[in-house]
Amino acid sequence: MAAPIAEELAKKQQAISVAEFFEKNRQILGFDSAPRSLITTVKEAVDNSLDACEEADVLPDILVQIERADKDNLTVIVEDNGPGIVKKQIPKVFGKLLYGSRFHALKQSRGQQGIGISASVLYSQLTAGRPTKVISTIGHGLHAHYYELMINTSTNEPEILKDNIVDWDRPHGTRVELEIEASYVKGRRQSIFEYLKATAIVNPHARITLIEPDGNEVLFDRATDKLPVPSKEILPHPHGIELGTLMKMLRYTQRQRLGAFLRYSFTKIGLLTAEEICRAAGLDPETDPRSLTRDQAKKLLEAFKKVKIMSPPTDCLSPIGEDLIYKGLEKEFSVDFIATTTRTPSVFSGNPFVVEVGIAYGGNLGKDDRIEIMRFANRVPLLYQQGGCVTTHAVESIKWKQYGLNQPGGGIPTGSAVLLIHVASTNVPFTSESKDAIADIPEIKDEVELAIKEVSRKFNHYLTKQGSLKKRREKEIIITKVLPRMAAKLAETLEKDVPDINPVVAKIMGNLLVSRHIKKNGDGSADISIRVKNFGTRLHKFKMHEMVPYHITNVVPEPKVVTMGNDFDYIWEIGVSPDASKVLKYTVESLSDDEISRLPEIIVEGVEEEIVTGAKAIKGVI
Amino acid sequence: MAAPIAEELAKKQQAISVAEFFEKNRQILGFDSAPRSLITTVKEAVDNSLDACEEADVLPDILVQIERADKDNLTVIVEDNGPGIVKKQIPKVFGKLLYGSRFHALKQSRGQQGIGISASVLYSQLTAGRPTKVISTIGHGLHAHYYELMINTSTNEPEILKDNIVDWDRPHGTRVELEIEASYVKGRRQSIFEYLKATAIVNPHARITLIEPDGNEVLFDRATDKLPVPSKEILPHPHGIELGTLMKMLRYTQRQRLGAFLRYSFTKIGLLTAEEICRAAGLDPETDPRSLTRDQAKKLLEAFKKVKIMSPPTDCLSPIGEDLIYKGLEKEFSVDFIATTTRTPSVFSGNPFVVEVGIAYGGNLGKDDRIEIMRFANRVPLLYQQGGCVTTHAVESIKWKQYGLNQPGGGIPTGSAVLLIHVASTNVPFTSESKDAIADIPEIKDEVELAIKEVSRKFNHYLTKQGSLKKRREKEIIITKVLPRMAAKLAETLEKDVPDINPVVAKIMGNLLVSRHIKKNGDGSADISIRVKNFGTRLHKFKMHEMVPYHITNVVPEPKVVTMGNDFDYIWEIGVSPDASKVLKYTVESLSDDEISRLPEIIVEGVEEEIVTGAKAIKGVI
Repeated sequence: MAAPIAEELAKKQQAISVAEFFEKNRQILGFDSAPRSLITTVKEAVDNSLDACEEADVLPDILVQIERADKDNLTVIVEDNGPGIVKKQIPKVFGKLLYGSRFHALKQSRGQQGIGISASVLYSQLTAGRPTKVISTIGHGLHAHYYELMINTSTNEPEILKDNIVDWDRPHGTRVELEIEASYVKGRRQSIFEYLKATAIVNPHARITLIEPDGNEVLFDRATDKLPVPSKEILPHPHGIELGTLMKMLRYTQRQRLGAFLRYSFTKIGLLTAEEICRAAGLDPETDPRSLTRDQAKKLLEAFKKVKIMSPPTDCLSPIGEDLIYKGLEKEFSVDFIATTTRTPSVFSGNPFVVEVGIAYGGNLGKDDRIEIMRFANRVPLLYQQGGCVTTHAVESIKWKQYGLNQPGGGIPTGSAVLLIHVASTNVPFTSESKDAIADIPEIKDEVELAIKEVSRKFNHYLTKQGSLKKRREKEIIITKVLPRMAAKLAETLEKDVPDINPVVAKIMGNLLVSRHIKKNGDGSADISIRVKNFGTRLHKFKMHEMVPYHITNVVPEPKVVTMGNDFDYIWEIGVSPDASKVLKYTVESLSDDEISRLPEIIVEGVEEEIVTGAKAIKGVI
Repeated sequence: MAAPIAEELAKKQQAISVAEFFEKNRQILGFDSAPRSLITTVKEAVDNSLDACEEADVLPDILVQIERADKDNLTVIVEDNGPGIVKKQIPKVFGKLLYGSRFHALKQSRGQQGIGISASVLYSQLTAGRPTKVISTIGHGLHAHYYELMINTSTNEPEILKDNIVDWDRPHGTRVELEIEASYVKGRRQSIFEYLKATAIVNPHARITLIEPDGNEVLFDRATDKLPVPSKEILPHPHGIELGTLMKMLRYTQRQRLGAFLRYSFTKIGLLTAEEICRAAGLDPETDPRSLTRDQAKKLLEAFKKVKIMSPPTDCLSPIGEDLIYKGLEKEFSVDFIATTTRTPSVFSGNPFVVEVGIAYGGNLGKDDRIEIMRFANRVPLLYQQGGCVTTHAVESIKWKQYGLNQPGGGIPTGSAVLLIHVASTNVPFTSESKDAIADIPEIKDEVELAIKEVSRKFNHYLTKQGSLKKRREKEIIITKVLPRMAAKLAETLEKDVPDINPVVAKIMGNLLVSRHIKKNGDGSADISIRVKNFGTRLHKFKMHEMVPYHITNVVPEPKVVTMGNDFDYIWEIGVSPDASKVLKYTVESLSDDEISRLPEIIVEGVEEEIVTGAKAIKGVI
């Protein structure tokens, strides 16, 4: 039976061009629905613009314009002030899948696959049947070139429909215009507006102008004129490199000695390390690397693990940074608390990577919904495929209860928090060509978890503190309501003055008790002492202010004095241990009873309001 | 500034071979961790074997053997009795990415991308540095060919290391052996064992033998000798076809008239429909299709929507079927309730697809965890990327409360349920080449939601019924505790016999009341009547069994008699309307008081236990 069937089947066997493949599987490239197709197209174009500007050391000035083409179609125009593309490269950059400059370079960049914008060209011709229009000029008064092109999907080669010279007002840069089947949506995270907003947060050096289909113009202006430190291209790091990759490197090297091969093919291998590796592998550094067998290559690989090799350099990466993440979250959300971290770089399969995380809490964030996760890879916001991303899986694998958030049914916790996660690498391992989710690489998952736990510990510390302050406040309210009544009742019964209940309150609350005692001398002067007793369990350091309209003398200890109009602000810096007291003393030359009754409250600066009794507490820096 | 930079950048621009691309991005192919890499490899090989056997009309007999190669590596052997591969195709099938027979065919098959097994070959050489070993014979006493091959990643062409003729005991079939970096895990869903078990459920015609690394052998035997109806290749359906695809078809057609082009390029377009479409598009059926402009093609596309065209044929699909899903769930889980559905086929972008869903509930399934989702695409289990799959997104977008499951924090509901979802299509739109998740195509999401809602309604009906039965049971417990005491007290007070409270219970509960009345005749014989009164609100049909050790006479109506050892089982089939009664009568020739006291309970078969009073209820089939 079988022979004719195998022959029959053989007739159908054929090679598939990569363009045909993606024409049939455009969802893999991120073109699975009308709103997403628009975001994917804009994202690919903007990624290219930002990468190009950074490579040329230019502050990016990008225009994104979306116009209605017909009922189902939109026209997307993205224009930048980048270095431009030389004439003969334009057709291939836009009209050939798997073509690019960043694929083989080991450094952080947005584009890395050589698929991005040509995928949009493919989608445009598939859904709108139109060629893509490109203008580019490389400056120096050279011509601007205009192309109209499509992709021949059978060959994966560009088909040039027009090739002209045009006038263009940009001195250098690139403009791409595509018509695509897509829809423009507003008011949800998965939208052009939100994508550009998130892009602006992590690329504060870029100015992006959006013109919406209704003509509305939105400017995401740059927050800084400083370009991020450009990431540098590096050689592969020996840790985690695959045996097959090493064998390929050995086979195709120009070096004739193994020692030199190691030194010049890898980062962080110097003369001594190379020799040590050869020794550990039982190989002669003088051997021709091209002659190594598989088993010898394997020995070399094992030697990489035995010999101490320095961590990869980090200048191939360009993290956002803790400060910028803090500022970004602060600007985007109105919250009560923010914590951020940038981890030290790590390696997977020879690729350096770094994880950054920020958490924002409280304010007007929703309480009962699942927390929002903002994901970024190499400074690009990831809007789709959240459920398939290692960052989400890391969030889900954490026991959030211990950090104070509910996690009903497991999975993503609920509460009024936002989590920002950024993975930067020389090679972000995306789960698909649409670059919307990062694969479950164990090393990356571990780092994301550690980073989340780091900020969550800070967050939990904050929550606990808030919780105990809240409890104190409730306790104090009860005490300060009940005790005065009891005291008043007692005074009435015993026909005595109402006693000062502050000491009792301070004692019960474990507070700092501040009290001013005035002793009038016969001569109209008064000796004043201020006592501070710490009923709490930890040392308090703070500033004490006595703001009064007269000079004071005999002051012990000596305060700092600030003149404020007619008043003087006498300031003491004080530390009081648990259960200890401090007393400050001074004399006022003349103090009438009227003046005594009008003495202002003592001010304590740098201690939480809730733990001070008998004085006014203000926040401040200690 | 820019010109030299653009020139500099241009130097780095280059084409990337698809093999290089995936060498760098192997996680896209499903090789992101050691356990997953093993599953991906086995899956690709088994998919190929199953597809080949079905194409050749052979009952699949597949061997999967996993051996330990060294510390980090496993050897994977997959052997089938398929039609084999002709000699000259072997190197390309295994040693070239994007090469295959099923890519252009519009019919349901497991492989469709032309990437699968060659991806595993790539992964093997990358991680183990070894060639892949292939034996294949196409039968008829022809030689078996043995190859050792790798992929040249720069060119994406096979590199043949060995090419021999060998003896092989299979009359026809293929054997592939690869060494890969991987790990063998047990006891969790994402494992080879569970993958093969799930594969066996939806492919009951296959026999799969697994030999684990420790030598343990597991047989997943076939449950049927019937091959599934083979899916047939079809032409594209005009609905949802892209403008670009239509333009390409027009441009490359051999037909010289538009009418003929339409009839012979699409399914479900006949002579009349073709003419109608041309009329609606304002085009002459005699026009040369190759001369159509983009705008004319667009008119044609719009005409496809205006003219009534029959749904696509369904013989290109091979769904699992409601019964098989039922049996699969029943076999796999010990549960209380199962509901399944196979929807009618639908279309997205010209691709027919069908969705099937089964839900299983109760039994020993965990109560507090999130429900388990078993996903399948074209009869292949999907084990990874659950969070990124349209099926999961459909589950999450349902308000489960209305179907009786909790959904804390939104997302996947919790409860003791399993949901099986199968999407079958001529082109399953996977989110990546690893084929683990289906993209968010709106048409597919809608169908999955509808299918889930369909089974969930049945499920909810069951739950409601269970709930009301539970309430009845509670009510009855109270009644049957209180009433007898009241009755006993009353009897004591009135000095009378304790009355039979069954009629009262039945009346309050709205039950079926069954009672046996015995009238002794003077001659030692007895007339027995069995009364059934329906106090409920709906018709009950059931079987009534009187199992006694003697012959009965004068029976009205006539029962069925089954002899069981010394006993006879007299069986009446009865229907009783609400508020109606039925009486059965018979005579026993000799019945002593002792025998009367030992008369067994009457048995009612086919009515829920909770609604029967005075007899024993058993489940059964009515």
